[in-house]
Amino acid sequence: MDKVERIGVSLDKKLLSKFDSLIARQGYKSRSEAIRDLVRQQLSSEVLSNPKAHAVAAVCLVYDHHATKVPQKLIELQHSHLLQAISSLHVHLDHHNCLEVIVLRGPVGRINKVAESLLSMKGVKLGKINLVATEHSSDS
Amino acid sequence: MDKVERIGVSLDKKLLSKFDSLIARQGYKSRSEAIRDLVRQQLSSEVLSNPKAHAVAAVCLVYDHHATKVPQKLIELQHSHLLQAISSLHVHLDHHNCLEVIVLRGPVGRINKVAESLLSMKGVKLGKINLVATEHSSDS
Amino acid sequence: MDKVERIGVSLDKKLLSKFDSLIARQGYKSRSEAIRDLVRQQLSSEVLSNPKAHAVAAVCLVYDHHATKVPQKLIELQHSHLLQAISSLHVHLDHHNCLEVIVLRGPVGRINKVAESLLSMKGVKLGKINLVATEHSSDS
Amino acid sequence: MDKVERIGVSLDKKLLSKFDSLIARQGYKSRSEAIRDLVRQQLSSEVLSNPKAHAVAAVCLVYDHHATKVPQKLIELQHSHLLQAISSLHVHLDHHNCLEVIVLRGPVGRINKVAESLLSMKGVKLGKINLVATEHSSDS
Repeated sequence: MDKVERIGVSLDKKLLSKFDSLIARQGYKSRSEAIRDLVRQQLSSEVLSNPKAHAVAAVCLVYDHHATKVPQKLIELQHSHLLQAISSLHVHLDHHNCLEVIVLRGPVGRINKVAESLLSMKGVKLGKINLVATEHSSDS
Repeated sequence: MDKVERIGVSLDKKLLSKFDSLIARQGYKSRSEAIRDLVRQQLSSEVLSNPKAHAVAAVCLVYDHHATKVPQKLIELQHSHLLQAISSLHVHLDHHNCLEVIVLRGPVGRINKVAESLLSMKGVKLGKINLVATEHSSDS
Repeated sequence: MDKVERIGVSLDKKLLSKFDSLIARQGYKSRSEAIRDLVRQQLSSEVLSNPKAHAVAAVCLVYDHHATKVPQKLIELQHSHLLQAISSLHVHLDHHNCLEVIVLRGPVGRINKVAESLLSMKGVKLGKINLVATEHSSDS
Repeated sequence: MDKVERIGVSLDKKLLSKFDSLIARQGYKSRSEAIRDLVRQQLSSEVLSNPKAHAVAAVCLVYDHHATKVPQKLIELQHSHLLQAISSLHVHLDHHNCLEVIVLRGPVGRINKVAESLLSMKGVKLGKINLVATEHSSDS
């Protein structure tokens, strides 16, 4: 655990009361917790705009498991790439479709490249990448 | 000007020092100012997910002024709609293309509807909507 | 497999050649495949703006496993909620942090609500939601 | 006007009928027009991830005109910068607030830098940047 510092922030009363009711609806127990989350998000999105920054990503793919070479490609990717494929999760959605979540670790630029090559495969219908910066999250 | 309140926020030292260097790069003069902006963005994006909330929007369109009925449509829209079209700005980009920024005011749902009908017109090549919540911004 | 229809699309030559080189870089083998993906994304993002639409979501959380009640909360959520929590994946990131990917299924509005309640928990440092529409993806 | 080429795209019948009803709701008159717009958006978002690409941007700021040096700063920026500030539009929102839309032209990286320095000014409450790629839009 890091040392904690306490800072003062001044806000207009009206702005503060709107923020208080928003974070109550979201389930926050304290303002500090909510503001820390805003600060972390801001830092994270800045880090992720740098292709060399280190990140963890969850790549989500919906694909048709009948008409595709995705499974073999996934296995290859997870074993051959300079990226570290940490883990993956397969969910059966219906007769045609499944969801695969692949957790990758490495530089942002390389993660995006690999994700793009997965999303463009025949049979992959939808895909999204969730990047989470690790450089700062790992030590804060 | 509203009354100002001062609250305390506790953050890990490392998180704080990263935040300080980010906001210095962005040009902020104080932490309070940077945190107020994060709070306002968060409130704004929540308000804008409600189709009935009041907003101001800048709709940006790139269109070909040779092959289109956009100019007439814009005039009609600005005068007939339940939305308040406050103002617009026309910029000549090159021989074929111009940029039109239209400032609209009204409920989020209706703004999105009008913007969609503009973006789908023949000759409109690109378009984006910038929504800004007014409900809270007007009094905070 | 559904029946396939062939449609004609007219595009300016320059636009087409730029599109061709983009999709080549992304790894697409055919224009049809690339355009189908654009169409699916567009449909998916429209469905996901409707809180009642059915979706599958991958909620990604980075949390500190020393200072948090997240694990218990996750177990509770996965068993008590009206949402179907299909599966989850836990990845150890470093001494302090772990990544949890939780696959949820249900109406968009409810998924967002549950995700919000997870993101606002003490100890959860970062979180993101990946929504994938299932209404159309399951049968197309 | 460029030469037009006609390409064939094959889609599942169900996917096509959903796409048809979506674009009808959006107001499109033809599939070609809707697909061209998807292609242009895709190209545009790729160009805009390159800091050296040329773009036009509409920067929208909501600021308090009592408590700020924004107006002077805007004038300075528009005249001193390496960026070309083409035009701007000022809208009076209420007693405290106004909206300023500034159209800038130049490399993406520089536009983002200037926009950031505006958004971080004291008195600027909300701000957003709309980037529109020009490299391809100007000739397609």
